[in-house]
Amino acid sequence: MAHPQVTFRDTTFTGKSLLSTRRTTVSRSTVRAQLEQIRSTGRYDCFNLKWHSIYEDKSMWPVPFHLFWDSDIAKWIEGACYFLADEYDAEIDSTIREFVDMIRGAQQEDGYLNVHYTVVEPGKRWSNLRDMHELYNAGHLIEAAIAHRDYYRNDLLISPIQKYVSLIGKQFGPGPDQVHGYPGHPEIELALFRLYSATGSIEAFELAQYFLTERGNPKGQDGKHYYDWEMERRGDEPWLRPDAYPENRTYWYCQAHAPIVEQPTIEGHSVRAIYLLTAVADMIHLSQTADRPLSDSKVWSQAVHRLWDNMVEKKMYLTGGIGAIKQWEGFGIDYFLPQGTDEGGCYAETCASIAVMMLAERLLHLDLDGHYADIMELCLFNNIMTSMSLDGKTFTYANQLASSETDKSERHEWFWCACCPPNVSRLFGSLGGYIWDYGSEGDGAFINVHLYTGAKVTFDANGASVSLEQKSNWPWEGNILFKLSASSPLQATIRLRLPAWSNGSYILTPSSQPGTVEVKRGYIRLTPAYTTDNPSFSLQVGGFEPRYLTPHRYTNQRTLTLARGPIVYCVEDVDNSGEKNHFKDTHLKADSHVSEHKCTDEQTGEEYVTLRSVGWNRPGTGGASSASGEVTGEERELNFIPYYFRANRGGEGHMRVGLLNGGDVSGILFPERARDS
Amino acid sequence: MAHPQVTFRDTTFTGKSLLSTRRTTVSRSTVRAQLEQIRSTGRYDCFNLKWHSIYEDKSMWPVPFHLFWDSDIAKWIEGACYFLADEYDAEIDSTIREFVDMIRGAQQEDGYLNVHYTVVEPGKRWSNLRDMHELYNAGHLIEAAIAHRDYYRNDLLISPIQKYVSLIGKQFGPGPDQVHGYPGHPEIELALFRLYSATGSIEAFELAQYFLTERGNPKGQDGKHYYDWEMERRGDEPWLRPDAYPENRTYWYCQAHAPIVEQPTIEGHSVRAIYLLTAVADMIHLSQTADRPLSDSKVWSQAVHRLWDNMVEKKMYLTGGIGAIKQWEGFGIDYFLPQGTDEGGCYAETCASIAVMMLAERLLHLDLDGHYADIMELCLFNNIMTSMSLDGKTFTYANQLASSETDKSERHEWFWCACCPPNVSRLFGSLGGYIWDYGSEGDGAFINVHLYTGAKVTFDANGASVSLEQKSNWPWEGNILFKLSASSPLQATIRLRLPAWSNGSYILTPSSQPGTVEVKRGYIRLTPAYTTDNPSFSLQVGGFEPRYLTPHRYTNQRTLTLARGPIVYCVEDVDNSGEKNHFKDTHLKADSHVSEHKCTDEQTGEEYVTLRSVGWNRPGTGGASSASGEVTGEERELNFIPYYFRANRGGEGHMRVGLLNGGDVSGILFPERARDS
Repeated sequence: MAHPQVTFRDTTFTGKSLLSTRRTTVSRSTVRAQLEQIRSTGRYDCFNLKWHSIYEDKSMWPVPFHLFWDSDIAKWIEGACYFLADEYDAEIDSTIREFVDMIRGAQQEDGYLNVHYTVVEPGKRWSNLRDMHELYNAGHLIEAAIAHRDYYRNDLLISPIQKYVSLIGKQFGPGPDQVHGYPGHPEIELALFRLYSATGSIEAFELAQYFLTERGNPKGQDGKHYYDWEMERRGDEPWLRPDAYPENRTYWYCQAHAPIVEQPTIEGHSVRAIYLLTAVADMIHLSQTADRPLSDSKVWSQAVHRLWDNMVEKKMYLTGGIGAIKQWEGFGIDYFLPQGTDEGGCYAETCASIAVMMLAERLLHLDLDGHYADIMELCLFNNIMTSMSLDGKTFTYANQLASSETDKSERHEWFWCACCPPNVSRLFGSLGGYIWDYGSEGDGAFINVHLYTGAKVTFDANGASVSLEQKSNWPWEGNILFKLSASSPLQATIRLRLPAWSNGSYILTPSSQPGTVEVKRGYIRLTPAYTTDNPSFSLQVGGFEPRYLTPHRYTNQRTLTLARGPIVYCVEDVDNSGEKNHFKDTHLKADSHVSEHKCTDEQTGEEYVTLRSVGWNRPGTGGASSASGEVTGEERELNFIPYYFRANRGGEGHMRVGLLNGGDVSGILFPERARDS
Repeated sequence: MAHPQVTFRDTTFTGKSLLSTRRTTVSRSTVRAQLEQIRSTGRYDCFNLKWHSIYEDKSMWPVPFHLFWDSDIAKWIEGACYFLADEYDAEIDSTIREFVDMIRGAQQEDGYLNVHYTVVEPGKRWSNLRDMHELYNAGHLIEAAIAHRDYYRNDLLISPIQKYVSLIGKQFGPGPDQVHGYPGHPEIELALFRLYSATGSIEAFELAQYFLTERGNPKGQDGKHYYDWEMERRGDEPWLRPDAYPENRTYWYCQAHAPIVEQPTIEGHSVRAIYLLTAVADMIHLSQTADRPLSDSKVWSQAVHRLWDNMVEKKMYLTGGIGAIKQWEGFGIDYFLPQGTDEGGCYAETCASIAVMMLAERLLHLDLDGHYADIMELCLFNNIMTSMSLDGKTFTYANQLASSETDKSERHEWFWCACCPPNVSRLFGSLGGYIWDYGSEGDGAFINVHLYTGAKVTFDANGASVSLEQKSNWPWEGNILFKLSASSPLQATIRLRLPAWSNGSYILTPSSQPGTVEVKRGYIRLTPAYTTDNPSFSLQVGGFEPRYLTPHRYTNQRTLTLARGPIVYCVEDVDNSGEKNHFKDTHLKADSHVSEHKCTDEQTGEEYVTLRSVGWNRPGTGGASSASGEVTGEERELNFIPYYFRANRGGEGHMRVGLLNGGDVSGILFPERARDS
């Protein structure tokens, strides 16, 4: 299976675009800034297995501060390897070599490779799969090893990792001498499928498949749920539970409340949930293409689609963010999508939307439907891009749709649980792999174009070298120029995504002859006849007028949000002076005129489009309970910027995506009291 | 201090009114039905200290099923004593005598009196104040003993209870040999103040004051928070916590996160919170009237008003319910007031609104403001009365504003944690005490009328016997006839509450001379000059036209609710056939005509007023994301009944208080997909 982390090498970003600008920033700034954090926080030499004073800090339970250090380094290595492929950097290169040396040195005789259980709690390995991220760390080491091998063309990292995988494979499985466990934080499953695709390791495939199949088995180990069993084995009282567990045994937190195929809705920690489904999609795809039979493939496929639909239709913010609840970093009930902390919560973790992109990309292989690419693009340009500053050095972890006094719209250099920043690097490093799919089709070639930017892909199909280049000013303008070429004549089918927000409006130039173009499930299909006649063509996608988005009425969010093309907009105080209450008192009307303005950011030179409209500030929070009449309030000009652009230019961190819709009264139950005291 | 549980004896309900009908039901049906439950569930003989098999059930932690049995019996005794005062019942009388015998027999040599720690865990008394309701049970025994003494005029129950109080007083206090603890579930504090008022026991007063003052002390016991200290003493792991605790050490659950006077907002379990504040109000009042000095009385007063205001303005449903969150049976963040389970939660426990009535009645003594009586009435006629069926035999515990598939609008005969049903009995038994305050004022008398119904009060003031009778068809009509009489001429000032929802509209007949009537803080004050000239007069309160209520806009509840006078209305499927989705898709418009209809319930003969209007059913849950235009949907007639009337006449349990306000579009983010599969 062609994962984007492999195929990105076929794609070059050409010209200046929003995505290429961001990739350059990550390459030249973010990767180094994150290395600096890894050094200054002590992570750097953890694989040397020396003692760090933070290891003594027991104030966090069950997850100590250093538990993810293995994965932080692994993810950094992975991202750095992707960027080295673009542009060589001697310091980065030598740092990766150092890390690899240290990791190799940290491996135990039998293959075991985990800092915490080697240094801090030796002898307790595999005693707490639910909480301790042991297999999660292993998964990221696997992914780092594949990226390392692909760039360095040696087995210095992948060889010890394969030894570790063998050890894990002996420990876990259906056999009578094996333990019937699976990770509390899924990740290793998708890493193992990647390892299988990269090396053909049947052991890796079967281990991943076991983890997916066994997960949530209510009687998996000695007639008990595995997490109950290991809890008893540790001697924990049955009511002892981590803070992330809202109640006792709420194993939906880690998607282990039922076997995956039986889960009716998507629940719990959102990153875990989507990493898990990404692996499920891999397993289904491999069963169709790689002779890895899956007896109940249809049931798995129904599950992944059912859970996806539940997520997108009932649990996703209009920014592509998922997860309303901070406590378990995950999903609330259906339609529970408040915008901020003071309205009931909003989490929308960066990693979760990156995971949605990964899953969407996988689903496009199973089921070519522009819907998945729409969601992929929504996540990329909104919830994900908003998580990093323009200079690539500061980040958000949660991406709320509205700030509050508790949680202002602001960024941080790092987090003790630093999953998000290196995930952004990994994504941008392998971004070329998300732009399109391609390959042989019949005697010829196909290219399915999912995302628009400036880029060129070159690949082999049926013995010919094929390349397709796209040039555009996306996401600001909808016109894209394409140029197809091949080393020898061949039949090429091209499918171009037509976003749902275009409402089906597009212009293809040269225009097509009848029968050479059709639109099906979100893609404009150009036949070989068309592409042979027109190796250069352009597509004009409609829908770049500003439009209003409204959440589903069951969300109780009666708001209007401005969007334009794939970009969702917000207001922040830096452009709307005097705002002191996080825009809680401002309403829009759907029939107001919206004007567009091209801008250039003074500091970075980055170009973007702002929107301007009029809103009304409602009178103070008091008021009578009467519901008659319309409150208009004080008119104010409102300046909207792309949501991803927030928190870059000062201000006090007041920001909002969805503003109150319309001017209908909402007062309070009782008239305000005059108080003597 | 004159608590309503004492003063109710001065009041007789006269004529037929909604309240008197309900009191008769409770007296003749509910008290017996609850006794039957107490028998059939095994509670009956628990004070005999024999073993019950349910004591072995460890599936609940930390609170075993039987933990509240002491209080269930105590509350039943208390309520039964109140009704015996009205109407003698030989079976009830003999049952109370049996209970008293058993309770006396259960007392240990040293005065200790608790079933669980005598039978199930002997030797562990006072080891877990946070969870084990030991002092809560003691509080209810105290209240039962006071009610018992007041009716039976003997000390058979109060005498052992006073011995128990002395034991508790030795155990807890500031002394070096005392433990610096306080109950996880406040209740004993208000019971002890009642005991002080009833018996003058300084020991009781000081113990209650200690509990209030010590609560939330971060370094109360050996430099630690008391609950941390006792947890360590039990050997519990620090992260072990009950399911009701959302996270570790969230002591706001039981209002012990900070000293009471420092708490900025009302938090946690709502019944605990309001029982606690009721005791605080008692303490302040006693410090003003009973020579029990309180050095920082102003700070306590600020605290109780601050927390009340936070509750009423930001955390109360328009039915008088409080508490949005099921997990901790309590308050969410400010303005978080969803209507039902599938919208984010709604708890609105019956006991909590009863507690609000108790607190409001106390605050009226500190600060005569019709606002408190408005809230008292709101709770009584809506959130509390909706908790019991018309036949007085089935109950609700949570009183949601909208049903859902998970939680339909339906009643139950009993609950394993049976706090609510006997609380309703206690309240109706002592209801006369909430109607009015009265007493001597200067040379004459005063009567502050808080609630309207048919009733007569007789009391002594400055040597005269004074009585005031009110006759009305409240809550259906606003006209009330009053008749004042006294055994000898005296100056009587009468204050009549003018509800906020009347918008200040009233007619007094005979009309007043200038200067003999003024309206201040929600009360129409009739001077002695007026009452002397007009011992019979009538008040016509305005505001009985149907009106719409809308929650504060920060709640994100853009709904309309119909109300009329003090009654809040709802729709249910039994009157609105064909409803299958809990009225989630129905909207109202604030300018629609509403008609009123007098009805008589076929089964009970109870009279009430229904409302009828028109609503619109929106198209299905799909739809485009466009926000232009108005969705009208299919018109339907809607029949509204009083919220308290719900779930009495069959149907499938679909019910809603607040319907969508207006017809503005809210679609979904993406157009619905046509799916091949």
